[in-house]
This record gives sequence, structure tokens and C-alpha cells, in this order.
Amino acid sequence: MTSASFTNPIIAAGVSGLQALYADRAVTPVEAVDAYLSRIRGLDGALGAFVHVDEAGARTAAHASSERWRKGKALSPIDGAPIAIKANIAVEGMPWHGGVGAYRDRVAEQDAACVAQLRSAGAVILGLTNMHEGAFGAVTDNPWFGRTHNPWRHGNTAGGSSGGSGAAVAAGLCAAALGSDTLGSVRIPASFTGTYGHKPTQGLISLEGVIAMSWTLDHVGVHGRSARDCAHLLAAAVSADVDLAEEITRPAELDALASAPLAVLDLSELEGVSPAVRGALDAIVARGRAAGLDIEPLVLDFDFLQVIRDGVLISAAESLVEHEAALAARPEGFSEAYRRTLAIGEQASAPALAKAYRDLARAAESAREALTPYAGLLLPTTPGPPEPFETAAAASVALLTPLANVLGLPATAFPTGLHEGLPLSVQALAWEDDTALGLAQLLGVPFEAPESYRG
Amino acid sequence: MTSASFTNPIIAAGVSGLQALYADRAVTPVEAVDAYLSRIRGLDGALGAFVHVDEAGARTAAHASSERWRKGKALSPIDGAPIAIKANIAVEGMPWHGGVGAYRDRVAEQDAACVAQLRSAGAVILGLTNMHEGAFGAVTDNPWFGRTHNPWRHGNTAGGSSGGSGAAVAAGLCAAALGSDTLGSVRIPASFTGTYGHKPTQGLISLEGVIAMSWTLDHVGVHGRSARDCAHLLAAAVSADVDLAEEITRPAELDALASAPLAVLDLSELEGVSPAVRGALDAIVARGRAAGLDIEPLVLDFDFLQVIRDGVLISAAESLVEHEAALAARPEGFSEAYRRTLAIGEQASAPALAKAYRDLARAAESAREALTPYAGLLLPTTPGPPEPFETAAAASVALLTPLANVLGLPATAFPTGLHEGLPLSVQALAWEDDTALGLAQLLGVPFEAPESYRG
Repeated sequence: MTSASFTNPIIAAGVSGLQALYADRAVTPVEAVDAYLSRIRGLDGALGAFVHVDEAGARTAAHASSERWRKGKALSPIDGAPIAIKANIAVEGMPWHGGVGAYRDRVAEQDAACVAQLRSAGAVILGLTNMHEGAFGAVTDNPWFGRTHNPWRHGNTAGGSSGGSGAAVAAGLCAAALGSDTLGSVRIPASFTGTYGHKPTQGLISLEGVIAMSWTLDHVGVHGRSARDCAHLLAAAVSADVDLAEEITRPAELDALASAPLAVLDLSELEGVSPAVRGALDAIVARGRAAGLDIEPLVLDFDFLQVIRDGVLISAAESLVEHEAALAARPEGFSEAYRRTLAIGEQASAPALAKAYRDLARAAESAREALTPYAGLLLPTTPGPPEPFETAAAASVALLTPLANVLGLPATAFPTGLHEGLPLSVQALAWEDDTALGLAQLLGVPFEAPESYRG
Repeated sequence: MTSASFTNPIIAAGVSGLQALYADRAVTPVEAVDAYLSRIRGLDGALGAFVHVDEAGARTAAHASSERWRKGKALSPIDGAPIAIKANIAVEGMPWHGGVGAYRDRVAEQDAACVAQLRSAGAVILGLTNMHEGAFGAVTDNPWFGRTHNPWRHGNTAGGSSGGSGAAVAAGLCAAALGSDTLGSVRIPASFTGTYGHKPTQGLISLEGVIAMSWTLDHVGVHGRSARDCAHLLAAAVSADVDLAEEITRPAELDALASAPLAVLDLSELEGVSPAVRGALDAIVARGRAAGLDIEPLVLDFDFLQVIRDGVLISAAESLVEHEAALAARPEGFSEAYRRTLAIGEQASAPALAKAYRDLARAAESAREALTPYAGLLLPTTPGPPEPFETAAAASVALLTPLANVLGLPATAFPTGLHEGLPLSVQALAWEDDTALGLAQLLGVPFEAPESYRG
């Protein structure tokens, strides 16, 4: 029987495991970073998770980290962790294009605030991950930078917009990664790649230095192979002005989780959710109840379809403002498909946009009220498994993810196991990051490496 | 020498004074309300401050209040205070039209949240005050409900949009009044009528039951003849879910005010502010320094003209959403001038609106940063004195008031004395309501009644 994880223990270790190996001096950050760089070199040609790799920079950072661990002066639990960054987040000296052709030659002059935070925690930046053009889509079949394949099935989407981050984490090409999530862009790839993806409380990670898709709905989030790995990366990435990062981002334990009732979304009125996903949610609820959690079905009066329409309109209008100069100067640097999406914003009137903002505010208010009696809500992450590229673009995969963006509340997507060889996922939405992460840790299945990437 | 106040001591007493008279059993609420109703009957025909008077309802409420005071069971310091309500705020059983013809036959089915709060504090509602159509303007020359004249000079504007509230307070037709303030609509009439007007911290008074001009920028505010009267009304009107209403709304005393430096807006780069207003601001600064305040000039990097343009666009777009159904069903119930204003929103694109929201958010962020070292900011309320109706519509009087709406911070407009027979005003913007009110109390001149309304 093959192990379900990576055969190389350095790769299998993830963020938390590496920390232990570094502390025990069993492995150095230089060795770990070399192992990851070597995998990227060997495997990413076919996978397409990275759009930029900085071998020299990563090695330099790894050497400095090795020195710190050697002296017992590690900066944080993620000191020396090999991390990948989504291509819309500025990393000094690297391209900063957000998957848009118009910016392909732009180099970031300084780190985004969250990257600066990661560096000051000792993280090693391996490079940049591929993404859906402009973050506006969930397929990551990028016209300028290529496709990111699903590590579970070549030819299928890894999701998006942070498809590269999800695939890189799943394939063991980085220990963890940053992504961004406007309407589900961290959680959808997490769902499709069998990994953990956490969209934090709005504002917990700064958006400074991140190309906006929608400043109203954007969040920087984290991808990892466990809730604990996500929590480590989150703790290191939170804004400098947020106190108690470590405490708010540690996954909550069972005692705390069992102290208040949870809700599970009643899906009976919701069309388009596959039977397999419904089954996965039921299984997770059963698992939670067996662990001692009180989980009650909740019919949420929330118009998921209207919210995604409003979210797309708001995102299109705000994206147009973000890209105004480049659209005027280099319109050919935006694909036709992307321009068609942005046209949704261009063709709408100001009152239509005002109405969309108001709709979302009202939807959030009523959902907030309905959720008040509960510590959290369990719901599927995506309505189905990842599709082949040929059909993926037509699928509405962001049906169940925008709720957390609209609420500004944390949500962790976690794997629930495979169905016909492809991962399924559930998300835990909660009032606090540690609750969402704790539920994911308690209820998610341990990360399994896709078979063709284990060796 | 004539007294500068009202000859009738009941009218001269204002909110705080009435409370003392009631407590001493020198006057009953029934007597006070009758005195006010009699003045409205005699004087409002020419003034035009009210659009609806509820004599029967006011007398019933006054009787109940008199009973409470007789038994020593007053509900609050404003129990029995005769209050007027701006016509865009719902008062059960009264018209609820917001100065718009299309709604002239609509009757409110229940009280706005703030009116319910006032009633539970024992306030007596005299009636509804006139306003600029749809709250969208600062003249209060209403095509459906007539002009509100300035009590200081018939034929001049009392400001707007809460012109009726300001005029009613100044002319002694109510003890205090509620208004609303989106870009200055409480403070501009306060400036033009020589009264005190306070726009509270955003959200302190609920907007539930108030016709929206812009849900992004709307605030319910209070009009009174002193900072203390404003504070009493504010304390009674704050949302039921806000704690410590009494404490956050008591004007701060000198000791507290002198404990941190204040800023005064450097007007040297600002065009359109009259010499008289500049002189009034200088005099207030001198008065503050003499009282022991540390007041430093501040050049604020804030594009006042761009902000008013953005504010108007946002308000037009949001007003269109608010009035969508009525505009479709009864377009003839909106004046041509109002429809021209709303067209600003109709003709703008969604990205233009998104940009306006972003501009305002950025402007607020940078102003917030600049104000951080100071406890508050002194600046003129309006750029000049109230003009005759013939020229009033063309004047940009909302130049200096939107700053507080954009910041969501409290600001109190207070009178600084007369110039050529017309009032001038300065506003104190602060981080806390009690600071703004305290500065107004310390630096404002005592209310003076307009000569023709004293008797």
C-alpha cells in the first residue's frame, strides 16, 4: 500500500512539520528550499502552478533562515517555510501582473504589506503562482501565462482564481501559499485540489500591495495542507496593526467548539449542488455529531444567485477603476473574455451599482442575524468536483463561497475525501478565525497527496 | 434694552430650562406645549417652518407628561419637551413625504426608530418641519410645501435641507428638533439661523424609518438652542442598542477639552470663504486660546470640491434607488429641478460611482490620519451668511460640511454672533460627540432670538 503523502519527508512535513524538523536540526531551511525548488523544476512544467520562480532569492533567504535556526533564533514558527505567493500580490523585484497581460513587464518595487509581514517572520518566498486573469474567474486557464492543471487529474481545472496556489500546495511544490479571495478565489481551488484554504476576517490581512479585483469584497487568504498550516501562515501574514495574531489564528479545540451550537446549511431549496457534495456534507455533519458537536439544520434566507450577480457587478465596476489607466493605454493586454466580463460593469448605471451595494449590505445583515444563535455554519465549498477545462468555464462554482465575503466573516474550506478520484470539500464559516480553522481541523480529512505527485 | 431672548420664559427656557421649570412645578408640559402651539399658530404662517402640526396628539402627550412630572416620575430630562421632526423621518399617523410631492399623501404606519426612542423618553412631538425636496439641497424653497424663511431676515433662506427644523428652533416654535445631515443638512440651517446643530457619530442615531438620500452618508442629527439642549435630544434619540447614551452625549468640560491640542483649518488655500466667516473663525480661535485651549493651524490635504462632487454623485445614485418605485409610478411628483439633480446619478456609469466611493474612502483615510494628533478640528460651517432666495440656489454652501459625513465623525455647528444682522457659525469636528458638543458649548455665543420672534 502506497503512503497517501509525499515520499520525501521534507515535502510531507508541511509548514508545521518543517518547523519541528528545523528545531530538531534534522533538516535545514536550505535543504528544504532546495527540495522544493527541485520539485518545481521537475514537476511544474506539466502542472503550470508557477508563473515565476526565484531560485536565487529563495536560496539566499533559506541560508539566512538556516543561520537563525542554527543559532536558536528563529523569527517565528514559519521561519524557513517555503511559501508561494499569488501573482496579484506584490513581491519586491518580481513581476506583479495579477495574471493580466497588460502588466506582464511590471516589476514590484516593494513588497505588499502581507509579504513584508511574512518576510519579517522569516518565510522563504519561492515565487509567484498562476491565477485566473485579473482574479476574475475560477478556472485559471490564463491566456497570458497558461493553464494550471489539477494535480488530481491533468486536464481538469484546479479552480481559481488562486488556482496556482491551490495546485502548488496540493502537488507539494510549496509548503503553503498566499491567495486572494473576492467571491471564493481561495476556497474554490482548495476545494478542487483537496487542500485547506482559509479566507480570514475582512481586513485581518492588509490589502496594501494587492491588485484589487473589488476593494469591497477582496480578502487575502492562505492555502495549506492542514488547518494548522493555514493558521501558521495567517498568524504571520496578519497586518502589523492587528494585535494577538497568534491567539486569534490558532485553530480552536473541541472543548471550545462544542460549547455552542453550529448550523449546517439546509440545501433542499438550492439547485445545482451535486449529490456527491450533498453526501460529503452529510458525512461531515455525522462526523461532527459523533465528536460531540450540536449541529442544527438552518434554512438561510439568502439569495445566493442574486448575491453572486451583485458581487460580479461590483467586482466588474471596481476592477474597471483599478485597471482604468492600463485599459486606456494597453487594451490589447486584456483578453477578450476578460473585457467581456468587465463590460458588465461598464454597461451598468450608477444606480444599478448603488442597488447592488445595498442588496449585499441587506443580505449580509439578514444572514448575520440568522447566524447569531450559532458559533458557525457548515456548507459545501463548491457545488461539485473540478471539471475538465472544456466545460469548466461554464460552471457556476462560486455559488456558496460569496456568503463569507459579503459577511466579511472567516471561512475555511477543508477536504472531505475523494469521490471518483477527485476531491470534495466543505467550508466552515464562523464569527472568529480560530473557530473556522478549528472546525476544519476537527472535521476535515488529513491531506492526501495526489498519486502522481507523491514521489 | 431688549432682552436678546424670547420674552415668554417658557419659550426662552429651551429643553434644559423646561426640565428645571417642570421639576420645580413652575410650569407643566401642558402649559409649555400650549405656548409652543400658540406660537406656531401665530407665527408659522409667515415663517413656513412646519409642514404639519399635530395639536391634538401633542396635547395628549403633554397631558401624559404632566402626569408623570406631577408624580415625580419623569422618563428622562426631555420628558415633556416640545420637539419638531423633519418631514423625512417617520412619525406614526403623520405624513411621511420627505418634501417630495410623490409622497404627499403617504402616512407613516409606524415611528422611525429615533422617534420611538424620543417618545419613550417622554418627548412631545409637535409636528413635522419643512425641508428641501428629497433632502437634496440647502435652500428649503420647496415646490410642494413652500418656502421656509430665515427668522433673521424674511426673504432669505434658512438653509437646508433641514431648513424648517433650524428655523423652528431659532424662532421659538419648538424647544428642539430632529434633522438629517448627508452633506451638511443639519449644520447649514444651524449656521443660517444662529442655532446649534449637531451631526452625531455615524450610526449613533438609527436611520431606520428615515427616507434615504444616501445611506452611505446619511445621519440623523439634532437642532437646539444650546449644545446642552442638543446633547439632551441626542441622548434620548440614540439607538436602543447603543450603551451609555447619556455619557457619550454630555458636552465635555474645559478640563477635558484642554487636555489635548486642537486644530483649526488653515483656510489660506480655500476659495469662496467670506471675510466675515474667516474673521468669525479667528475670533473663535482667540476665544479658545484665551480659555486655555491649545489650537494649532492645520493645512488639511482634503479636496473639498472633489468630495462634494463625489458626495453628490453618490447621493444622486442612492436617491434614485430609494425613489425607484415612486419615480416610475408618479414621476410628476418630483420637481423638474429635483429630477435634474437626480439625473447626475442616472447619467453616471457604474465605474464612475465605484470611483467616487473609493475617492471618498481614500479622502477619509488621509483626513483621519492628519487629524490623529488632535482632539478636534475647528472650521467654518458655511462659507458665508444666508442669502436671499433669489441667489441662494446658486451658492455652494456645502463646501465645509461633507468632511464630517465622509469621516463619520461628530460635528457641532455653533453660532459665533451676528454680522450685518445675520448669523455666522463655526463647527467643531471631533472624535467623540461629547468633545464636539463641549467645544460648541465653550466657544459658541449664547443663542440670541431673532428680533421679530422675541415677543
